[in-house]
Amino acid sequence: MRLIGKQEIEDIAIGAALLGTGGGGDPYIGKLMALQAIEENGPIKLLSPDEVPDDALVVPSAMMGAPTVMVEKIPSGEEAVGAFESLQAYMGKEIFATMPIEAGGVNSLLPLALAAQLNLPVVDADGMGRAFPELQMVTFYLDGVSATPMVLADEKGNNTVLNTINNVWAERIARGATIEMGGSVMLSIYPMDGKIIKQSAIHNILQLEEKIGRTIREAKQNNHEPIAEVLKLTNGHTLFNGKVTDIDRKTETGFARGTATIEGINSNQNEELYLKFQNEHLIAETRKRTLCMTPDLIAVLDSDTGLPITTEGLRYGARCVVVGLPCDPKWRTKKGIETTGPRYFGYDMDFTPIEELMNKGEQ
Amino acid sequence: MRLIGKQEIEDIAIGAALLGTGGGGDPYIGKLMALQAIEENGPIKLLSPDEVPDDALVVPSAMMGAPTVMVEKIPSGEEAVGAFESLQAYMGKEIFATMPIEAGGVNSLLPLALAAQLNLPVVDADGMGRAFPELQMVTFYLDGVSATPMVLADEKGNNTVLNTINNVWAERIARGATIEMGGSVMLSIYPMDGKIIKQSAIHNILQLEEKIGRTIREAKQNNHEPIAEVLKLTNGHTLFNGKVTDIDRKTETGFARGTATIEGINSNQNEELYLKFQNEHLIAETRKRTLCMTPDLIAVLDSDTGLPITTEGLRYGARCVVVGLPCDPKWRTKKGIETTGPRYFGYDMDFTPIEELMNKGEQ
Repeated sequence: MRLIGKQEIEDIAIGAALLGTGGGGDPYIGKLMALQAIEENGPIKLLSPDEVPDDALVVPSAMMGAPTVMVEKIPSGEEAVGAFESLQAYMGKEIFATMPIEAGGVNSLLPLALAAQLNLPVVDADGMGRAFPELQMVTFYLDGVSATPMVLADEKGNNTVLNTINNVWAERIARGATIEMGGSVMLSIYPMDGKIIKQSAIHNILQLEEKIGRTIREAKQNNHEPIAEVLKLTNGHTLFNGKVTDIDRKTETGFARGTATIEGINSNQNEELYLKFQNEHLIAETRKRTLCMTPDLIAVLDSDTGLPITTEGLRYGARCVVVGLPCDPKWRTKKGIETTGPRYFGYDMDFTPIEELMNKGEQ
Repeated sequence: MRLIGKQEIEDIAIGAALLGTGGGGDPYIGKLMALQAIEENGPIKLLSPDEVPDDALVVPSAMMGAPTVMVEKIPSGEEAVGAFESLQAYMGKEIFATMPIEAGGVNSLLPLALAAQLNLPVVDADGMGRAFPELQMVTFYLDGVSATPMVLADEKGNNTVLNTINNVWAERIARGATIEMGGSVMLSIYPMDGKIIKQSAIHNILQLEEKIGRTIREAKQNNHEPIAEVLKLTNGHTLFNGKVTDIDRKTETGFARGTATIEGINSNQNEELYLKFQNEHLIAETRKRTLCMTPDLIAVLDSDTGLPITTEGLRYGARCVVVGLPCDPKWRTKKGIETTGPRYFGYDMDFTPIEELMNKGEQ
C-alpha cells in the first residue's frame, strides 16, 4: 500500500494521457477532479493487486461517451458516487475498492477522485493497459468476466442498471442509453473479486503512468529529451515528425471518429501521416505503409514539451511527434486481436506488431 | 371479480385494436399469446379497481417499440415474465396484480397472458384509454406518478432497470435502449399502489374493449351495421369513406412514422384524406379541413367487416371507414393537451375536440 498525493496525480495525469492513445478523456479534467478530492479528503490509498483479498468485491469506475462530449460536460463527481452506490445496493455486498477500467486522462484519474470521496482504496490495475473505445475491450472479457450488473448514471440523476447476456450487448445497450443520456455518463462496471483481478487485470498501470509522467517532467527539468526517455521506458518507437494540417472529425453513434492528417517535417519532409481514430487512435499510416495499428498504442506528443495531445486536442498547425508502443501481450493473443485488432474496426489488414512494422521500414 | 375466458379474449382483441388507433401492436399476436396462456393455465381473474387494496403493488406490463418491428419479433412471453420478476426483486415487494398501460392489440392482451402465466389477477384499468406512442403519455403522469423503477427485457435475456428523474427522461433513455435491444422490448413500468390506480387510472377499459368487440361480432351475426353500432357505443363519428392509395411509412428513432393517403368513395368522392401517424394515428385531415386530432381517437375500420386495421396493416387498395372518437376527459385538460395534443407532436394547431370539428363541418 502506498499513498497518492498531488505530485503523483500530476505525473499520473501525463502518463495516462499518453497511454490513452488520444482517448480516455481530457487529462486536465481528470486531474482537477482528483486534486480537488485529495484537497478535501487527503491522500488516496493505492493497493497492489496482491493486497486485495480473493473474495473482496472490486468495482471499476469510468466515464463512457465521446471525448468530444466529455470536454463540454464536466462531471461533478456526484454521478460517479451515485453509480457506485446504486451498484452496491443492487448487488447487496459492500464494495472493497475501486480501480480504473482503462488508462486515459479521465478514466485513470476518476477512480482516484471517487476513492478519495468515499475513503476507499484504489487497486493499481486496469483492464486495458491503454484506452479502447468499447466496453468489451478489456482483459476481463478475454477471461470471460461479465461487464454486468453495471450502472450508468448521468449528472441529472438518471440511472440504469444493466444485466446483459454478454459484454458486446452491454456495450451496445449502454452506448444507446449513453447517447440518450446526453452523450456521456458515469459507469460502475465489471464487478469482480480480488482473485479475478490478480489473474486477469493488467497490473501496476498507475505506477507506469506515474513513471511516464515523472520521466517527462524530470527530462524537461534536466534538459534531456523527454520523448526519447519515454520511448526508452515503454519500448516505444518514433513513427513520424510533423505538424497537423487537417482534422476530419465527427461525433456519431456516440463516438468521436475521424482522420487527422500530419504533414512531415525534418526526416519526414514531403510525407503525410494519416491517423485514423474512434475516440482512440487506431491506425497510423502514410501513403506507402502502415506504421502502427491497434491494439498497439499510437500517441501524439507535443514536439517541444513531450506532453501527450488527445484526439480532441489536436489543432491545426500543432507540431508533434507521433510515437508507437507495443501493447500488453494479452492483446496479441487470438482473442485479443479479434476483440481489438484492425479487422474489428473495419480495416482490412492483419495485425502486425509494431516491432515488425519498424523492421520492415528499415529494410 | 370475474373470469376472462377465450370468447372474452376474442372480443377484447377487437376492441383493443380499435382503441389502439392504429398502434398498440398487432391484435393477432396479442390474442394468440393470451389464448395460449389461458389454454395452459385456465381463465384469468379480472378485478375492478375498487377491488384492489390501497397498499397493494400493481405493475403494468407492456411491449415497447415500433409496431412494424413488433410484427416481426414475436414475444415468447418469457421476456415479460423476466421483466416482471426483475422489478419485483428490485423493489423487494410482492406484486399483487398487473394491468395494461394502454389499449392496443398487444398491450391490452399481453398483461392478460402474463397474468395467466403467473396466476395473478389483472386490474380492469389502463393509463391511456387508447394507445399513445410515448411512455409519459399516461394519466398517471398527469398525476405525478413516476414511470420508474422500470425494467426493460429483451428476448435474448438482456435486462435493464431504469431510474429516472422524470417520465420524459424515462421515455428517452428507454427508447434509446429499446432501439439497441432490437427495436422492441417488454416493460414492467409505473409500479403503483391500489390507491393511485383508483384515482389516476382509466377504469373498466377491458370491459369497454370487450363490449366493442362483442358489438362488432353480434352486429355481423344479426346483419346489422357493425360500424354504426360501434359509433353509438363510443360516441364516435364517421370521418371518411375511402380506399388506401398511398402509405409513406418509415421506421425511425424507434417509431413507425408516416402518412397514409385515402381516396374518397361514396359521399367522399373526389376528396382525399391524409392520416398522419407515429405508431398511433395523430391527425386526420383533408386538403380543406382537419377532421380529428390527437388526443381524440382516430381508427381505420374495414368497410365490410367493421374490424379495425392497424397502421402497419394498412394496405394499398383496402376499403375502409375512418372514424373518430372522443378521448377520455383527462386528456382534454391543460396538462393532458400539453402531453398528447397536436403541438407536442409538432403540428401547429390548437387542440379542437372532435364534436366541435364535426359541428364546423356541418355548418
